[in-house]
Order: sequence, then structure tokens, then C-alpha cells
Amino acid sequence: MFSPKFVALVQALRGLPSVGQKTAQRMALQLLEHDREGAAQLARAIVAALEGIGRCESCRIFSETPVCPVCADNHRDATQLCIVESPTDWLAIEQSGAYQGLYFILSGHLSPLDGIGPEDIGIPELMNRLANSPVEEIIMATSATIEGEATAGYIMDRVDPARYKVTRLAQGVPMGGELEYLDAQTLSLALKSRRSV
Amino acid sequence: MFSPKFVALVQALRGLPSVGQKTAQRMALQLLEHDREGAAQLARAIVAALEGIGRCESCRIFSETPVCPVCADNHRDATQLCIVESPTDWLAIEQSGAYQGLYFILSGHLSPLDGIGPEDIGIPELMNRLANSPVEEIIMATSATIEGEATAGYIMDRVDPARYKVTRLAQGVPMGGELEYLDAQTLSLALKSRRSV
Repeated sequence: MFSPKFVALVQALRGLPSVGQKTAQRMALQLLEHDREGAAQLARAIVAALEGIGRCESCRIFSETPVCPVCADNHRDATQLCIVESPTDWLAIEQSGAYQGLYFILSGHLSPLDGIGPEDIGIPELMNRLANSPVEEIIMATSATIEGEATAGYIMDRVDPARYKVTRLAQGVPMGGELEYLDAQTLSLALKSRRSV
Repeated sequence: MFSPKFVALVQALRGLPSVGQKTAQRMALQLLEHDREGAAQLARAIVAALEGIGRCESCRIFSETPVCPVCADNHRDATQLCIVESPTDWLAIEQSGAYQGLYFILSGHLSPLDGIGPEDIGIPELMNRLANSPVEEIIMATSATIEGEATAGYIMDRVDPARYKVTRLAQGVPMGGELEYLDAQTLSLALKSRRSV
């Protein structure tokens, strides 16, 4: 009943994650009724991002240059390679400031039931990245979920254990974590991996 | 730490209603990583909507033509004018199929504390619309909130009661509404306005 261009806009907004029909309609109304400048800005930002942002040919993070600033930085430790599942995980580690090595960003995790295999998440590219590189330690920073573990396991089966030291992020009680709200699995793991102080 | 074009995209997405930093980041990642075609489509839809959608000069609903299809429809009853607060309210009434008259769409409701006065929501345009029109009945369909009531009251004070019949949507128990979950005000109102069957 609204104009066709409005319907098309609502439809396009529904493609965003966790946006349903009602939310998309509210967004379209907001853009048209109260924020036309913001709407034009959003369209320009999308086009600029699509045209300007590719992937770093070394680590696959979003980058506006063929090699991203992190990979191009001579001060980073090229003997360490941290493997993450997504750009957001990459961002979380970078923002922690605790890591000075390089990265490789997968496109998610293996999920055979959804038809997502090694080629879909970039494992062949990872193998290419490892070949002829000075990497000594591979830090598996995939998620602590069944799929994340499976992905880490799949990769570990394919790298030479004589050549690389393979490590995994420590698991346990998070900082500020109250024990009563912690799930039983994490708690039992933290207990098993207890260390003397 | 992400590329500037990515940051600009996240910033633009944050302008959408109820989208915070984390959600905007997830949206931007989704658009760039999994749905570049959808992203291009969204940018095109926004531009097309901004360029193609204006307001009906008679009722102020979004329209791609100077006069919207509803106002241009000779079969609608031009003696009834239903006043709503927003295009979504207009849509809700149109979709009910229960109304055959015409509309006038305000831009929200009066809110003196936020500095939103009669000029901001289109009341002068409403007065122009009423002048020299065949309208006989004004149906106040603003929200059943304090602001909606105040807006309706403001308008009612400014129309000639000798010339127009002014009505208000009935209030009471909604269809399928279970009494135990109904607020006390609605219930007391429904009780006071009880009718014999």
C-alpha cells in the first residue's frame, strides 16, 4: 500500500542481520521522515565500502590496500600466526593490545551440516600462507564452541607438528566472572587446569 | 583499527533506529563479508527512495506522485478526514480495510518539552487542508497516549465545532485481549463505556 520504492527499501533493509519486517519498516520511515541526510550518507558509505574495501592478500582482513597495515608492519612478530574465525574476533584481539604477531582470518567455522567445508572458510589459503613463511607458532584462536574446536582440530591435523608449535587460547574463569553464574563445563575446565600460585 | 571506510559504514549504520555500535559492526561485517550484492541493493534502494519519494500534497503520506493514490481515488469518501500521527498508523488503518475516507498524516505528536510544536508536526498544513474542503467529519486517530491526547485536544480547540463533527477512536478491551493482562486504566475505561447487547 506504500509506494513501490518504499517497499523496495524495506525489503533491502530486511537483508541486514536480525532485522525483521517491523524493524525494517521503522528504519525506512526513520530514514525518509526524519533523517534524509543520514540516509544519503548511509548509501554513500555502503558504496564507498564496497568499492574501496577488499581483503588483505596475506591475512584476509578487510583492507583498503592490497596488504593490510598489520601485515605491512615490520615491528610485528612474523613468527607467530594467530588464526581467528572472523574480523570481529581479529578486532577483539587487536584491541586487547596483548598480541604482537600476525593473523589469518577464516570466513567462519566448518559446519558440514550447513554444507560449509574447508574451501568455504579459506583453509586452502591458510595452507598457502603457511608455506614458505617464517611462522613458528600457530595460535588457534577459533571459538570455544563445538564448531570452533572442530575447525581448530581440522587445521591441526593438516599442519606439520614437527615444524610448528601449535597453541590454543587458555580457557577458564573470565576476569570479573562470578562463579555462581558460570556454566558447569567452564568451571570444571578451570578446576582441572588450576595452577599453583 | 579497521579501515576508515569500514568505520564510516559502521557510523552510518548507527544512525538507524535501535542500532548500537555492536549491531552496526555486525551489520557492516555481514554486508561486506557475506552479502555484497545485498549491500549494493540496499544502497540503490536508499538512493531510489530518497529521489523518488516525496509527500502527497494533500495528506502528506509518502508518495511517488504529487497526489497519492488514496487522495486521487474518487471512490473514497471525501467528507471524512482521519488524522494520524505517522505513516505506520496510516498503514495500520488502511490494512484494516475498515475505512473509506481520506487521511491527514501528522509528523508525530506535540511534545513541548522536546521543543516540538504545532509547526513541526504539520498542524498549519492540516488547517489549510481543512479550509475549503468538503470534510464533514474529523476522526482523531492520534495515539491513546498523553501526547496523542494532547495533540488531539490542541487540534479540536482549533476547528469550528459547528462546522465539523469530531470523533475519536473507541477505547476498550482489544480483540483477543485477556482481562488479566490488561492495564487498570483500559479496564476501567472499558467498564465505564460498557454497552448493552
